[in-house]
Amino acid sequence: MPVRNVKLILQYDGSGFHGWQRQPGVRTVQGDLESALESVLRTPILTEGASRTDAGVHALGQVANFKTESDMPAERLAAAINSRLKPDTAVLDASDVPEEFSSRFSAKGKIYRYFVLNSQAALPVLGRQVLHVRPELDIGRMMAAAEFIRGERDYRSFGAQTANKENTVCDIEYVTVSQIPCMLLGEAPGKLLCMEVRGSRFLYKMVRTIAGTLVEAGKGRFEPEEINGIIESRDRGKAGPSLKPHGLYLVKVIY
Amino acid sequence: MPVRNVKLILQYDGSGFHGWQRQPGVRTVQGDLESALESVLRTPILTEGASRTDAGVHALGQVANFKTESDMPAERLAAAINSRLKPDTAVLDASDVPEEFSSRFSAKGKIYRYFVLNSQAALPVLGRQVLHVRPELDIGRMMAAAEFIRGERDYRSFGAQTANKENTVCDIEYVTVSQIPCMLLGEAPGKLLCMEVRGSRFLYKMVRTIAGTLVEAGKGRFEPEEINGIIESRDRGKAGPSLKPHGLYLVKVIY
Repeated sequence: MPVRNVKLILQYDGSGFHGWQRQPGVRTVQGDLESALESVLRTPILTEGASRTDAGVHALGQVANFKTESDMPAERLAAAINSRLKPDTAVLDASDVPEEFSSRFSAKGKIYRYFVLNSQAALPVLGRQVLHVRPELDIGRMMAAAEFIRGERDYRSFGAQTANKENTVCDIEYVTVSQIPCMLLGEAPGKLLCMEVRGSRFLYKMVRTIAGTLVEAGKGRFEPEEINGIIESRDRGKAGPSLKPHGLYLVKVIY
Repeated sequence: MPVRNVKLILQYDGSGFHGWQRQPGVRTVQGDLESALESVLRTPILTEGASRTDAGVHALGQVANFKTESDMPAERLAAAINSRLKPDTAVLDASDVPEEFSSRFSAKGKIYRYFVLNSQAALPVLGRQVLHVRPELDIGRMMAAAEFIRGERDYRSFGAQTANKENTVCDIEYVTVSQIPCMLLGEAPGKLLCMEVRGSRFLYKMVRTIAGTLVEAGKGRFEPEEINGIIESRDRGKAGPSLKPHGLYLVKVIY
């Protein structure tokens, strides 16, 4: 049989995983996926993922690919993998792609969203899926601050563990902040905010640090125009905190 | 001290509870709430709830009240209770109400919502909060069917355990079906539907049976106008199935 290259689009609730990447002794998305694939295809399978999401981070559209000699049609393959995955992971789509396709290295960009619930009380029905922030946030200030995070620049100020990293230049296409309707708010006074970022690549913890910096701008700790100086300083200490993983979603990988 | 009557608005994720009502040996919302109150007020407290939500049903705006001689301001009371509740329950508001107020008997009506994710794949990040339905639903048919469930009528066809129930007449103000935006769908093709019902009172499992009947209408099993005959038959066997609890939310109690 000729070798095929199969691309998967995956969604997962990151709460129960120690992140994407296969690691001995702990539950990871890649580990679960490779176990499911081995069970379906009856041979060990190595996968490659587009993004190494951290522990607790969710994915709406993670991409992974693997090589196989199986002739099982892609659609049946997806169903077979799903039947072996726990309910917190799902293959949304499986398709054959050219041999040279790499979910990681062929990616041209990624879209992430970070959700913040801004309300007096934390809301139990949204607890695992959004970050709760109690002080009232000025969304106009956050939007204005977000405008400054754009373009091909050195974003070292927003990266973690960059000490030995040579290249900290990323191309950020946009960062937006919006208030979104949420029928799960119910009787609770509050607002649900979504910060969305699209860029060519991201440093470790970069999206969560951008989100944390925008939240600080919303609290009034930064003026929107100070963001420019934070980026130019190339000093992680100048930016806001890195927010918790459970509000972060990998939305889409662009090829 | 004079006796006060305190009203609480509560939100909870029903996944971890055997429903609202206090029961020995199992975890219930009322049980957790009364334990928290006893810890705050240092005396056993009995609460009354507006709706006895079933195991797995969520609440965005459940209402409960209790009598106390404590002079702790309502706002501090809410914070003290919250500090003793697990993260899946929250008091959104506490306020003093007239002595005769009863969260259950003073209620004039209730609003419930039932959420259905209509997509090929079940979505892990929404798994605990909405019901997944795979066959494509015709939302126009569901909307048309919902129009027939209205007014003060005998809704025995939609009730469970009605054998010994004398009065099965309820006044339904409206049932609506709408497609709502959901930023958590991400890459998944699919739609999120919300069925909302407002009525004076509801029979046991009535909202879940109305939702199940509308879903069957959306699948083409019923014509919308057949709903009228289902109601008039007063026969539970004529209606659709009662849907699972995890897609159901008590949104608001009206006084």
